[in-house]
Amino acid sequence: MKRTIGTCYYPEHWPEEMWEGDAARMVEAGISWVRIGEFAWSRIEATPYQLDWSWLDKAVATLGAAGLKVIMGTPTATPPRWMIDKWPNMLIVNEQSQAYKFGSRRHYCFSHQPYRLECVRICTLMAQRYGANPHVEAWQTDNEYSCHDTTLSYSDAAEQQFRLWLTDKYQNVAALNTAWGNVFWSMEYNNFEQIQLPNQTVTDANPTHLLDFRRFSSDQVVSFNRLQTDVLRQYSKAPLIHNYMGRVTDFDHYKVGADLDIASWDSYPMGFLEDRSEEGEAFKARYAQQGDPDFQAFHHDLYRSVGRGRWWIMEQQPGPVNWAPYNPAPLPGMVRLWSWEAFAHGAEAVCYFRWRQAHFAQEQMHAGLYTPGNDPAPGLFEAKTVAAEIETMPEVSTATAQVALVFDYESDWAWQIQPQGASFNYFKLVLEHYRALRSLGLSIDIIPPDSDTLESYRVVVIPGLMSLNSTLRNAIDNFAGAVISGPRSGSKTAQFAMNLEPPMPGMRSKISYVESLRPSTVIPMKNTGNVINWIETTTNEDPVLQRTACNRPVLIGDGHRQYLTAWADQSALRSIFKTLCQEQGVAVQELPDGLRIRDTKEHRFVFNYNPTPTQYQGLTIEPAGVHWEAL
Amino acid sequence: MKRTIGTCYYPEHWPEEMWEGDAARMVEAGISWVRIGEFAWSRIEATPYQLDWSWLDKAVATLGAAGLKVIMGTPTATPPRWMIDKWPNMLIVNEQSQAYKFGSRRHYCFSHQPYRLECVRICTLMAQRYGANPHVEAWQTDNEYSCHDTTLSYSDAAEQQFRLWLTDKYQNVAALNTAWGNVFWSMEYNNFEQIQLPNQTVTDANPTHLLDFRRFSSDQVVSFNRLQTDVLRQYSKAPLIHNYMGRVTDFDHYKVGADLDIASWDSYPMGFLEDRSEEGEAFKARYAQQGDPDFQAFHHDLYRSVGRGRWWIMEQQPGPVNWAPYNPAPLPGMVRLWSWEAFAHGAEAVCYFRWRQAHFAQEQMHAGLYTPGNDPAPGLFEAKTVAAEIETMPEVSTATAQVALVFDYESDWAWQIQPQGASFNYFKLVLEHYRALRSLGLSIDIIPPDSDTLESYRVVVIPGLMSLNSTLRNAIDNFAGAVISGPRSGSKTAQFAMNLEPPMPGMRSKISYVESLRPSTVIPMKNTGNVINWIETTTNEDPVLQRTACNRPVLIGDGHRQYLTAWADQSALRSIFKTLCQEQGVAVQELPDGLRIRDTKEHRFVFNYNPTPTQYQGLTIEPAGVHWEAL
Amino acid sequence: MKRTIGTCYYPEHWPEEMWEGDAARMVEAGISWVRIGEFAWSRIEATPYQLDWSWLDKAVATLGAAGLKVIMGTPTATPPRWMIDKWPNMLIVNEQSQAYKFGSRRHYCFSHQPYRLECVRICTLMAQRYGANPHVEAWQTDNEYSCHDTTLSYSDAAEQQFRLWLTDKYQNVAALNTAWGNVFWSMEYNNFEQIQLPNQTVTDANPTHLLDFRRFSSDQVVSFNRLQTDVLRQYSKAPLIHNYMGRVTDFDHYKVGADLDIASWDSYPMGFLEDRSEEGEAFKARYAQQGDPDFQAFHHDLYRSVGRGRWWIMEQQPGPVNWAPYNPAPLPGMVRLWSWEAFAHGAEAVCYFRWRQAHFAQEQMHAGLYTPGNDPAPGLFEAKTVAAEIETMPEVSTATAQVALVFDYESDWAWQIQPQGASFNYFKLVLEHYRALRSLGLSIDIIPPDSDTLESYRVVVIPGLMSLNSTLRNAIDNFAGAVISGPRSGSKTAQFAMNLEPPMPGMRSKISYVESLRPSTVIPMKNTGNVINWIETTTNEDPVLQRTACNRPVLIGDGHRQYLTAWADQSALRSIFKTLCQEQGVAVQELPDGLRIRDTKEHRFVFNYNPTPTQYQGLTIEPAGVHWEAL
Repeated sequence: MKRTIGTCYYPEHWPEEMWEGDAARMVEAGISWVRIGEFAWSRIEATPYQLDWSWLDKAVATLGAAGLKVIMGTPTATPPRWMIDKWPNMLIVNEQSQAYKFGSRRHYCFSHQPYRLECVRICTLMAQRYGANPHVEAWQTDNEYSCHDTTLSYSDAAEQQFRLWLTDKYQNVAALNTAWGNVFWSMEYNNFEQIQLPNQTVTDANPTHLLDFRRFSSDQVVSFNRLQTDVLRQYSKAPLIHNYMGRVTDFDHYKVGADLDIASWDSYPMGFLEDRSEEGEAFKARYAQQGDPDFQAFHHDLYRSVGRGRWWIMEQQPGPVNWAPYNPAPLPGMVRLWSWEAFAHGAEAVCYFRWRQAHFAQEQMHAGLYTPGNDPAPGLFEAKTVAAEIETMPEVSTATAQVALVFDYESDWAWQIQPQGASFNYFKLVLEHYRALRSLGLSIDIIPPDSDTLESYRVVVIPGLMSLNSTLRNAIDNFAGAVISGPRSGSKTAQFAMNLEPPMPGMRSKISYVESLRPSTVIPMKNTGNVINWIETTTNEDPVLQRTACNRPVLIGDGHRQYLTAWADQSALRSIFKTLCQEQGVAVQELPDGLRIRDTKEHRFVFNYNPTPTQYQGLTIEPAGVHWEAL
Repeated sequence: MKRTIGTCYYPEHWPEEMWEGDAARMVEAGISWVRIGEFAWSRIEATPYQLDWSWLDKAVATLGAAGLKVIMGTPTATPPRWMIDKWPNMLIVNEQSQAYKFGSRRHYCFSHQPYRLECVRICTLMAQRYGANPHVEAWQTDNEYSCHDTTLSYSDAAEQQFRLWLTDKYQNVAALNTAWGNVFWSMEYNNFEQIQLPNQTVTDANPTHLLDFRRFSSDQVVSFNRLQTDVLRQYSKAPLIHNYMGRVTDFDHYKVGADLDIASWDSYPMGFLEDRSEEGEAFKARYAQQGDPDFQAFHHDLYRSVGRGRWWIMEQQPGPVNWAPYNPAPLPGMVRLWSWEAFAHGAEAVCYFRWRQAHFAQEQMHAGLYTPGNDPAPGLFEAKTVAAEIETMPEVSTATAQVALVFDYESDWAWQIQPQGASFNYFKLVLEHYRALRSLGLSIDIIPPDSDTLESYRVVVIPGLMSLNSTLRNAIDNFAGAVISGPRSGSKTAQFAMNLEPPMPGMRSKISYVESLRPSTVIPMKNTGNVINWIETTTNEDPVLQRTACNRPVLIGDGHRQYLTAWADQSALRSIFKTLCQEQGVAVQELPDGLRIRDTKEHRFVFNYNPTPTQYQGLTIEPAGVHWEAL
Repeated sequence: MKRTIGTCYYPEHWPEEMWEGDAARMVEAGISWVRIGEFAWSRIEATPYQLDWSWLDKAVATLGAAGLKVIMGTPTATPPRWMIDKWPNMLIVNEQSQAYKFGSRRHYCFSHQPYRLECVRICTLMAQRYGANPHVEAWQTDNEYSCHDTTLSYSDAAEQQFRLWLTDKYQNVAALNTAWGNVFWSMEYNNFEQIQLPNQTVTDANPTHLLDFRRFSSDQVVSFNRLQTDVLRQYSKAPLIHNYMGRVTDFDHYKVGADLDIASWDSYPMGFLEDRSEEGEAFKARYAQQGDPDFQAFHHDLYRSVGRGRWWIMEQQPGPVNWAPYNPAPLPGMVRLWSWEAFAHGAEAVCYFRWRQAHFAQEQMHAGLYTPGNDPAPGLFEAKTVAAEIETMPEVSTATAQVALVFDYESDWAWQIQPQGASFNYFKLVLEHYRALRSLGLSIDIIPPDSDTLESYRVVVIPGLMSLNSTLRNAIDNFAGAVISGPRSGSKTAQFAMNLEPPMPGMRSKISYVESLRPSTVIPMKNTGNVINWIETTTNEDPVLQRTACNRPVLIGDGHRQYLTAWADQSALRSIFKTLCQEQGVAVQELPDGLRIRDTKEHRFVFNYNPTPTQYQGLTIEPAGVHWEAL
């Protein structure tokens, strides 16, 4: 497949006179795709029911005439000010029960029914107008669901919908009381109307109450999005996309993705490193101008799964951004590296955000491909290089990996609700497993927790999965390869009670008790590396494969079914995975620090995240360098 | 006295079929006492006025039939959901004036008069039913008053009651204005109705306003508890108990204790170390699996005082808990050590919390004596060992100590209100004085601030006591032994103004000014150790006994009356106490780190909090070891 | 001019019998000025409209009879409790939209119109009574505007006034939408009534919305103060003063100062070091008993500018205070040093706060010249020394400096709203430039951002000035000396959009992009020192004067117009300023650490902030020593 590049453009921010020139320069830069419209509601409908499509018609026409393909965004992430006058209760409410105010974005509550109807109305009007427009070749629903922590809302609307959701799930309140264990602390309800949202309790709320609220909240995003896809599909045959964010887990992306044709995400490697990484100071200083070498790849692999193979970068960081605690410039070459890394992981398109830096309002310090004064910015040159390289590039096709890693949104909610140790973080645990696998030179597929078959893989890794559903249990039962599960995987029932059975199918040991460890408590392994954060004691009914220096079992099982009782550090994980992969005939290599590889069907790509030249099999890869070779 | 062990049991959590077997195994484990009922309101009264006692009757009968003694808990810490429908304003309100929600526990405001009547009603019904039951041999009121910071409530109910309390105390508003110094910043009130709770002020509220609110809030706990004891005493002759918590100072335990027969507390050594200790990282890492070696003993001695000699452990940590930032497992042997340490300090009973770990709801990760799957957990074996040892043990009787330490709840409120230096913490100050005394091998009595005689002691230590009342002043005047007071002791009047007289009875120096010190400012003593946190300058009208290296007086007075002008560190305190004790003929010995001793009338007990064997007078005490020898 | 000393006195706090003795001892101590009245509203008007002036008449008479001059404070900072009954909505509201409560001070909202009328009423009554009193020789309006963060209020009153302010500024909402760039994220308003205060938005509010709110809030302070000065000038010819605080930037002091005759500030060197300094632990430990050696001088120079040459210390720290995190005592000699440093910078009077430490209420731990027991406190002796030294002192007259530094309140608001890097702090940036200049032995004038001429200076330094207005641009154009501007100076338009033109008049380079740096990212300069926090990339159209070791331009321009593209550390700044001053014929000398000098017309003053003797040109300056020599 021929990869493409694109950009994000806001015709409403610039005089009409500039549009044609902008379009011409986009084409000249090798750009194919232009996303527009997603924040323009106040220009489409400046006052209620007074629609003005003329400027947008013209923008689409101008871009289309230049040969560009338009991705049209529905404008529902930024309802205009008059909408709040019309529906004052539509505002999202925070955990302290305070409604947010108008004045930025994403200020709506997903559960507010009248606002949902307003969204259906504007989407219908937009789809009717542009659904058959030949230049509109893709649609984006809303923008960055959950960004700025906007999935959870403690509004009256959410409370009402939550009660309906619970009624639907449990049918009668006695069933709910049993499922939640409400006999504990006299928490039993007499009817569904008594149930409130689980914020502002004196001490911990019931964990199942909390988990059901997280499930409900995620479902609200799914159904909100589906309202839009239902409308769009009536009027358009173009693929439907949403642009997810990095390290956002508040809703189940697999479920939203099921209603869309293509997944996409907004990749800000440096912003995310500063803003959303638990790595320490030394790591952040080292990768301050590159981003975490595994964070992007992890999301590429995750969203490829969410998009069932089809995915894009909808917004690619092109230079310094405005929103992280510190915002330096990328190392020269990084914009190209990030782009090629995305392609190597299967991205169909990489769109740079944004075409031209705005000189006003909230994002005036966010770089674009052009400066606010309309001069080329450094990112432009790298984007042009990428476009030129695409032209000379043979196929880049995604190959199925030999190793699969299960990622589950619900588990992240579960362990946020019940970390048991302050350092237990599901996302971090999974990312560290991914990092260890990647540092062995592996390409990885991320798969959902309800995968019904594992047969294309040789090794499946399942860290911290709260509960193994029957689909996955069956898949494991039928799987000839190796599965390594734990810590904490399978420790709960679907209702978030303790699982009293062995946590790992095919093994006999049950969990006796668990311990969470202070950061300064490090337990050395007998071989290499350490146990950190977490260790479990089991009934010890399986062979022991690895122990701590003080002889506690850490890895138990056999060659095909293994359970990890502890949070192993990078060194220990690499050792464990290396042995397991070699046993399964999966080739591994220990990569130099900062170097990562990714195999497509045709090529091996090598990416150097270091600010210094790095050796790879006799080759010198330049700082921020990308190398590819035929397989 | 023969010591006993017990456990906490929730028949309502388990099928009736399990009760008899549980009771049999309790007896087999050597258990005498079983606490039940304290969270069961929703099962006793599932809907208003529909009482169901049948299950509880049966539970009591089953336990009693097995030979167990029941401690019946009043269920008032967890009013059921329908109670909130009935009395929406009963909810506790936080300092930000936001009402907490139903969904966990302790959600009531102590000042809400209708809820008080509901408590009287349920206690009366319960006492009528079980007051004469031969198996109910003790009662527990409510559960863990103040846990989760639930003493202070900023509700409308609290405001109304506070005004009544103030009216009662001051009679007229002019007297209040004078007592509080309200002329300062034009804070004068025209009538009691104008007085609000002292939260959410622009900057500091008046300190006497704050202190009176703390006194009022404490008194509300006292009167709430007394409502229950008044009812229970009408129907039962069994002793009345409340289970206090560790490091909870928001109400005056001496006053609550005055209405009860036995004090008890819930001892979670490891949870408290993680959650409620200001000790540094190294200390916490060292004692992560043991708990602070002085924290338990301090509370044992404190609650022995609160119970006027009679006290229990109502909940003893039996394994990893669920609520601290980090929750490792105790070192093997610690459950036994904690139990024997409690007995050595005079505990009549040690009850383990809980019999069986629940597999659902908030505390599903909290260890019990049995696992949720009904297998024995590590704590069970240690509890059985303790039970067996009790059988072979001669008398364990409490001896009066030679050293007394004054602990005062009001002083903790005072210095929270007016720390003057961010590191001045009353509880920490007293604990550090206690620690220094204990590390000299001393047994200590903790006494209240209104002790009317000190004659049984040789040395009395009074750190940081806000104000010396006339009772204590008289006791000091009549005391032949040595008193060491300060820093900050006696610096205030009862109304929280500055005391302009000499702070220490029998001495002449007055305080000129005080200085609080940054943590990095350490002033070396001439002899050994350092001044940290705090130093006072006096008018210097008494002999100087100890000075800093730069010659500032730190300890002044004579052999019998001494005033410490500074916060002395452990090394300096040990040196000062050693000299003073030796002068008073009190034998001291410098104990090895991590080793503690406690003398009963008959024995010397030695406890090893170290994870390594430790020498004591030629003996090797094992890790987590307990040794006793006849005196 | 002969300098004077004064004190702050609260006759309402003490029995009338003490007043005469106090007055006599004030005179004996060499005191000329006594400030009274500023917190006494509840004693003047205990109930609405019942005025009692008798005690205040007597106090003024007693002080006047002793030969003291009274500064009369208007009592508007502490409206009494009954005022809140009368106007419940007058309370200031915090950013979480919660109204503060009565019970401390500064609890009013500047925008509340009825409270403004109450202030006019009480000021009128006070001015009518004392305006012509011969002993009342100065007036103070209110007390410490903005102390405890009281400028910004999110009340309904503020919202209404903000809409009026915006209507007045923009005339029509379309103009506002354009100025703010509200097309971004569909933030466009249909009318002014839709505009809310910019708190509690989901993510960043529009920066211009925020900046206009900051401008409005500042203007509310200005107009509130002007209401009082308008009244006072009707009845009194005495000079009008307000006492500003240290490091308070929430309102434009230049604008408030324009309505007053004399500026004054409340100087608490040690409290401010602990409470309001970003310097690190080592610095704070070193200067814990002295205060930051540049903080006081900076404010002296700033308020001299605000007072157009006339300024006082209204409250001088005389010993330990009560409000900082740690409150040690000043080094012996510091009270004298602080006093003389103020005089050397042009203070007409230094008043010590307070005469006698109060033994009650919020400030009972705040030192005075006398202890609460009426004994002399250490500060008294130093104040007396100062008074005696004044007597022997020839003239102390302010000379115009050769170096000017621009300080702008609006820039502090701007970079708080849009720091772009977490370590970018305008006040810190300016203070660091000031510190580097001072450590070169320079005396400095601080000037406002709308200075219309620079001709008295040789070097003008303009760090971080958000926007250069046309007045300053003209002054720069006409200035023969050297101007060094940046980083970030001139980067915005007046409406807080990006300035697309060259930021520095007379230079050609424009800003291409900026980078904020993590604290651990330090870029060495080619010569000496480092770039920290911030670096800009320009279009590089001017000569490069200084570069980083890796060759990035840091200082560009020529001998007369220079732009600093980065935040240079102390070492780099000293080097840059040294070269520039030497080129401009301004003598510099590198002072020993902790030593500072200040030149008046007649003398050179030398101040030793070190706790050790320090050499200065062959002389030994004692710890906390002051030296002066004729120029």
